[in-house]
Amino acid sequence: MKFLHTSDWHLGRQFHNVSLLDDQRAVLNQLIEYLQCNRVDALIVAGDIYDRSVPPTAAIELMDDIVNRVCNELSIPLIMIPGNHDGAKRLGFAAKQMQHSGLHIISNFEQMMQPVVLKSAIAGEVAFYGMPYNDPEVVRHHFGEVVTSHDEAHQYLIEQITSQWDPSQRHVMISHCFVDGAIESDSERPLSIGGSDRVSHQHFVPFDYVALGHLHQPQKKGEEYIRYSGSLMKYSFSEQHHKKGATLVEFDEQGFASATHVPLTAPHSMRIIEGELLDIIEQGKTDPHNHDYLLVRLTDKHAILDPMEKLRQSYPNVLHLEKPGMLVGGDQAMGRARLARGEVDMFRDFFLEAKQEVLTAAQEQAVIDVIQALRPGAQV
Amino acid sequence: MKFLHTSDWHLGRQFHNVSLLDDQRAVLNQLIEYLQCNRVDALIVAGDIYDRSVPPTAAIELMDDIVNRVCNELSIPLIMIPGNHDGAKRLGFAAKQMQHSGLHIISNFEQMMQPVVLKSAIAGEVAFYGMPYNDPEVVRHHFGEVVTSHDEAHQYLIEQITSQWDPSQRHVMISHCFVDGAIESDSERPLSIGGSDRVSHQHFVPFDYVALGHLHQPQKKGEEYIRYSGSLMKYSFSEQHHKKGATLVEFDEQGFASATHVPLTAPHSMRIIEGELLDIIEQGKTDPHNHDYLLVRLTDKHAILDPMEKLRQSYPNVLHLEKPGMLVGGDQAMGRARLARGEVDMFRDFFLEAKQEVLTAAQEQAVIDVIQALRPGAQV
Repeated sequence: MKFLHTSDWHLGRQFHNVSLLDDQRAVLNQLIEYLQCNRVDALIVAGDIYDRSVPPTAAIELMDDIVNRVCNELSIPLIMIPGNHDGAKRLGFAAKQMQHSGLHIISNFEQMMQPVVLKSAIAGEVAFYGMPYNDPEVVRHHFGEVVTSHDEAHQYLIEQITSQWDPSQRHVMISHCFVDGAIESDSERPLSIGGSDRVSHQHFVPFDYVALGHLHQPQKKGEEYIRYSGSLMKYSFSEQHHKKGATLVEFDEQGFASATHVPLTAPHSMRIIEGELLDIIEQGKTDPHNHDYLLVRLTDKHAILDPMEKLRQSYPNVLHLEKPGMLVGGDQAMGRARLARGEVDMFRDFFLEAKQEVLTAAQEQAVIDVIQALRPGAQV
Repeated sequence: MKFLHTSDWHLGRQFHNVSLLDDQRAVLNQLIEYLQCNRVDALIVAGDIYDRSVPPTAAIELMDDIVNRVCNELSIPLIMIPGNHDGAKRLGFAAKQMQHSGLHIISNFEQMMQPVVLKSAIAGEVAFYGMPYNDPEVVRHHFGEVVTSHDEAHQYLIEQITSQWDPSQRHVMISHCFVDGAIESDSERPLSIGGSDRVSHQHFVPFDYVALGHLHQPQKKGEEYIRYSGSLMKYSFSEQHHKKGATLVEFDEQGFASATHVPLTAPHSMRIIEGELLDIIEQGKTDPHNHDYLLVRLTDKHAILDPMEKLRQSYPNVLHLEKPGMLVGGDQAMGRARLARGEVDMFRDFFLEAKQEVLTAAQEQAVIDVIQALRPGAQV
């Protein structure tokens, strides 16, 4: 018994105003190729199929194509739950009508209580329970129970499942949540403010495997069999060192046997380059991955005219630029830094770049006069 | 062989800022009750299932419920096409995965060429072809054919179908279009500007039955078997005299045998009341349908303070007010009319209503002085 655990596809996501759909399509094609060559019994998506509750039409078309290839062409059951980015009711339309084709979208609590049961020669019956992403209020409202946190909501829902399950089966849980102590990235949208979104991994211990979604870094938490597969591809520069892919899970007679990382590679990586402008431009000329999506941190200490345009000559997909070399007094990201160079220095840099000439003493005095005329009493 | 032809559900529609969802739910419940008591072989929705391409979640939930009751509980095949209000790709997500459950959403040209074939003892095999709503450009782009109008697009698509169909079968066409010469209402959104949206009924003649959507009034065009079922309920005041419902179609050995109107009644009708304020208020007190959605045309010739509030005491759902009695010079709807009463007359009416006193000559002179001070030279 083998199944492939994925999560956080975020189809339709934009990154610094660039559509990632072509990259997503390429990665999903790799996934399909893997499935063609390596037979599995199910494919799981643990939430955040789309990047938002009303996804763009092109993302729906891509998903429709993937569903057809997985469920119809390969006849592999596809089991998914909505995540906090998805609209559960929108995603779950006609879910009951899709089940017989092997497409299982578990988007409400009734469906949560009816596992998808797959039979295998070695591991026997394996029941896949999906817990659709839910705010504590939704659980409180639906069940009339006093739950105030994600942890309590999970505890309650898991008790509903474990109290009714068939103990002769193996049990897989699919959940989209933030397990306490796990490592986050910059690209997950917080589930709630102030830490009340954390869920203890202890609730998941009774299951044979737990396929988690939400956190974008592949990782296990608490037990070998409680795992995040991580996102399909990188969705922030903070993920530059992540190894993205899917998790291949294998069950034997005893249940969980192994979890193996199946790498998936996007056409464009996301990474950070730091250095002086001319060095980076030079390096880009021989960089085989010069089409990656880049954040560039320039360490130059003088002002530069149109640095983005210059960088893009060798790195066409620079998406974000930081200039820490131009700042003093600390943290650029926090907005507390200030420019290290005064107005006259800045103008001198500009003049040199624009005219390819050094500012003369007379010209410099003229600039000082202008600044003082505009701001009487200015220190220049 | 019997099937029920409906169209233009427009789930999620707002009417003068009032949600019609509860009315729609009530009408659909009547439809379900009809289906429970009167067995049919299929239910058709000829487009405009939703009112817009991204429908509100509540409309999706209602549709999901109806689909479950028709396809799963009653096991009646449900065949639908997107209309010009629907988003075809959004609506058509996972359509292939739904087919086996009896839910057939025909949203692209590949699906159009693969009819839903139902078998009947009397009429033999009946093939239901759905033509998803399409602009001429879509047909031109998809097939690489020179089509410039809806008529040419329909002609081309129907030729595709009839050239390949199985002549031993009966053929039903489902289309969302404006058949030339048919009667429109105020609530259909035009398919195109300038009349190029009209389609000749001649293209449809080869079929045994044509289930049309788009026009909101039930009607036939050209042949007994080329029909609009009309919308599920009234969607504009211009439809106040329409008989809304579904069309029950019966086939015998020869094919089309009969079309019968099955009435459906919304909790609130939409209608227009005309008269003087006090008469209307009085009439409302004994009107058994005083909760209907109303357009009121007041024929009073003097200004009235808060007429809406007064009317709503006996007709709580007055949604729109016109005051033709206050106007001269023609057509209020075209914005060419002007007020029949001058400023001093208007103020006199207001004073009487607000103070329950007649304006004295001195007070009237004061009003005239104010108006002339504000607009020197004004004729009052």
